[in-house]
Amino acid sequence: MKRVKVSNNVIRRLPRYLRKLDELSENGVSRVSSFELGHQLGLTPSQIRQDFSCFGEFGQQGYGYNVPALRAEIASILGMDRGFRAIMIGVGNIGRALTENFNFSEWGFQLIAAFDVRPEIIGTMFHGVPILSMDSLAAYLAENHVDVAVLTVPKEAALPVTEMLTANGIEAIWNFTNVELTSPDSSTLVENVHFSDSLLSLSYFVAERCDERAAKTARAERV
Amino acid sequence: MKRVKVSNNVIRRLPRYLRKLDELSENGVSRVSSFELGHQLGLTPSQIRQDFSCFGEFGQQGYGYNVPALRAEIASILGMDRGFRAIMIGVGNIGRALTENFNFSEWGFQLIAAFDVRPEIIGTMFHGVPILSMDSLAAYLAENHVDVAVLTVPKEAALPVTEMLTANGIEAIWNFTNVELTSPDSSTLVENVHFSDSLLSLSYFVAERCDERAAKTARAERV
Repeated sequence: MKRVKVSNNVIRRLPRYLRKLDELSENGVSRVSSFELGHQLGLTPSQIRQDFSCFGEFGQQGYGYNVPALRAEIASILGMDRGFRAIMIGVGNIGRALTENFNFSEWGFQLIAAFDVRPEIIGTMFHGVPILSMDSLAAYLAENHVDVAVLTVPKEAALPVTEMLTANGIEAIWNFTNVELTSPDSSTLVENVHFSDSLLSLSYFVAERCDERAAKTARAERV
Repeated sequence: MKRVKVSNNVIRRLPRYLRKLDELSENGVSRVSSFELGHQLGLTPSQIRQDFSCFGEFGQQGYGYNVPALRAEIASILGMDRGFRAIMIGVGNIGRALTENFNFSEWGFQLIAAFDVRPEIIGTMFHGVPILSMDSLAAYLAENHVDVAVLTVPKEAALPVTEMLTANGIEAIWNFTNVELTSPDSSTLVENVHFSDSLLSLSYFVAERCDERAAKTARAERV
């Protein structure tokens, strides 16, 4: 695929487009205008058109976008058709929650193995995923191609484990540890999951509602 | 606080600004220009200035922003100084992971109780949080002010539990269930945590790197 340099903000919006298109498909919608898509996502139609224009021509002036075709195109741009292989490092609460509830294959990923240090779970299977010993990680990576490591170890293990992963050829880390893993010039791709971003957005809306109510009460008292 | 209507995209960027300002503070930086802040966040300086102008005047032309003052202002806008109270519904893997590893108080929240259906954990404490019976939830909500419910129940319980929460006065839900909870006209504030958005952004960058490498190899072979 020919690639152009696309801004980070556009890339971050692609998964949201994908979810919205899946939702439209489920509701039997097969064509959508940039106006309607923008309305549903809180973006302007011109922003939508500009985002998609980074990757080529998807829509037809006046006819809108074909939902399944656009969905397939975005999925491909996101690499969902490449069969990327992931391993999980750390089978604690968050590791178990992801293995049980997050459908990697829905997003084009195969979760092929998990690694932990606790002897009582090493050698067992968890939801179809073999749990292997951390001691065998280097050998495993020498023999198996892995695209992404999902990092769900305790905070204090985050940096040493990351060093070990990168020394053994891992180039992309999905980081749940809340520890900053790399300096900006590092070549390892790191995607941090920040739960706080999501909670604080909610917090904003709760605060806004409180203020609106207080203002209403104040107005009523003045009358 | 006087509030103006702010676009959803601006609100979503505020937590990222907050994290960046915390990082600058930790590195001893006390003043930052919109140019530098934009550079570090992948945004244009004018976008930064425009975002902050929604809430008043923070910067001084040519002098940049005072980091602690801007941080305090954003924290306040996000409602972090209001002592919002949260309860957790469901103490499974994800509930335990959040209780153990997510520092609610760092973001201005108090996690005051958790609820579950399993008799063996009801009545116990988990990391300082009492685990109560789901049967006592309605009575609890009648007696205690709760701002946000963190929903970490299994998928099949998501909708009935949400109904029960809203019927008992809960107006904001932080939703980890991957189930769409409300219709757009509902008055309940719902913030969905979508792990896939984050994984797919990473997937994009992995795919991009693969393509760059393939292109390089192809060029080398032509020479």
